[in-house]
Amino acid sequence: MGGIDDKLKQLGLILPPPPTPGGCYKSSHQEGHLLFLAGAISVHDGQIIRGQVGADLTVEQGYQAARACVMQQLAVLQNDLGTLDRVKQIVSVNGYVNGISNFSEAPAVINGASELLVALFGESGRHVRAAVTVCGLPKGAAVEVQMIVSIAN
Amino acid sequence: MGGIDDKLKQLGLILPPPPTPGGCYKSSHQEGHLLFLAGAISVHDGQIIRGQVGADLTVEQGYQAARACVMQQLAVLQNDLGTLDRVKQIVSVNGYVNGISNFSEAPAVINGASELLVALFGESGRHVRAAVTVCGLPKGAAVEVQMIVSIAN
Amino acid sequence: MGGIDDKLKQLGLILPPPPTPGGCYKSSHQEGHLLFLAGAISVHDGQIIRGQVGADLTVEQGYQAARACVMQQLAVLQNDLGTLDRVKQIVSVNGYVNGISNFSEAPAVINGASELLVALFGESGRHVRAAVTVCGLPKGAAVEVQMIVSIAN
Repeated sequence: MGGIDDKLKQLGLILPPPPTPGGCYKSSHQEGHLLFLAGAISVHDGQIIRGQVGADLTVEQGYQAARACVMQQLAVLQNDLGTLDRVKQIVSVNGYVNGISNFSEAPAVINGASELLVALFGESGRHVRAAVTVCGLPKGAAVEVQMIVSIAN
Repeated sequence: MGGIDDKLKQLGLILPPPPTPGGCYKSSHQEGHLLFLAGAISVHDGQIIRGQVGADLTVEQGYQAARACVMQQLAVLQNDLGTLDRVKQIVSVNGYVNGISNFSEAPAVINGASELLVALFGESGRHVRAAVTVCGLPKGAAVEVQMIVSIAN
Repeated sequence: MGGIDDKLKQLGLILPPPPTPGGCYKSSHQEGHLLFLAGAISVHDGQIIRGQVGADLTVEQGYQAARACVMQQLAVLQNDLGTLDRVKQIVSVNGYVNGISNFSEAPAVINGASELLVALFGESGRHVRAAVTVCGLPKGAAVEVQMIVSIAN
């Protein structure tokens, strides 16, 4: 108990407040033991990380943006579950990179999401994923990440 | 019983015929109590709503296109389930907007889908979602919406 | 038993080695009877099929690329399950086509994935799907396909 909170502290990470849905939807929905999350855009310190990776942002900046998306998702999970220790497994990550045409580095960008999840949850954080480059994201965000999570009761 | 049909009438909405799959796939598949739907493109009165939002179509026209996608999905549900009253919960909406590079208004467009679902089903219609801008959709459609729905037996 | 292996032989198909994840993720994750697969890019004979469909590749070449993605996914399934005969149903296919702006032929491209699945598994291979055009894919691949599969114990 308290394992993931300790891990967050060790990594020097403080969860942001859970994001408010940017439209007519909700942040999460549970079906059985699966928790479906809404996509979260890249927000850090209350500011949207905007721009197209490959033009306005470097791959490294995109990596940080993907990491910020996961922090948003973790804030939703913390709010929903009371504690991140109830996360049994990160099932899937869909990573959307706002990028220029022909941008091929989505995996390096979305690793910013994936590596944080594995650092925090170990093998329970290792997930399937798809990483694609899209030509636009809500509010001009650089990255959007959507997850499905398996939870313990 | 009959609640959603009545709601449709109150809103002045008539379901279109269920769309024929535009390729080698099927419109829906049930696994347990979850019904996975194929993506539906924006068709209204038998005509595809085509074009890129931000260039050929305004955000308001995109909103109407997203609403038309949901009408297509509802037609599939009605056909599969016999009655929309068997919809227990709209679980997720993936909204793809055919847009120009850097188009950032996908949430305002996909609200056309989400707001209709909430108007019809109330909180049971509120879902998680991801809204992204892609550079092309089947047959040049303006919007594509894919849903997962939880159903009652 | 052995039915799908025989079918592969009849079609003259030999499964490639299962792909190594191109980032910090895993190739598959099972939740109950559902197997979630990571997206697989178009690789044939160990070479990535690269380029944008509509510019660098024809629709027919895109079709072959989508087919190659499914071969990658089948290799993962074979490796995970021991035999493809344990596949009960292909539930969903998400097909991402790396294409030029306004490219509208994603269904014809992703049919390369869908038609192979139906040829191999019959109606158990028929799935729901979404086919969209994105502006970039990992390593410049032409197509990426992600599947959810229902499996028998």
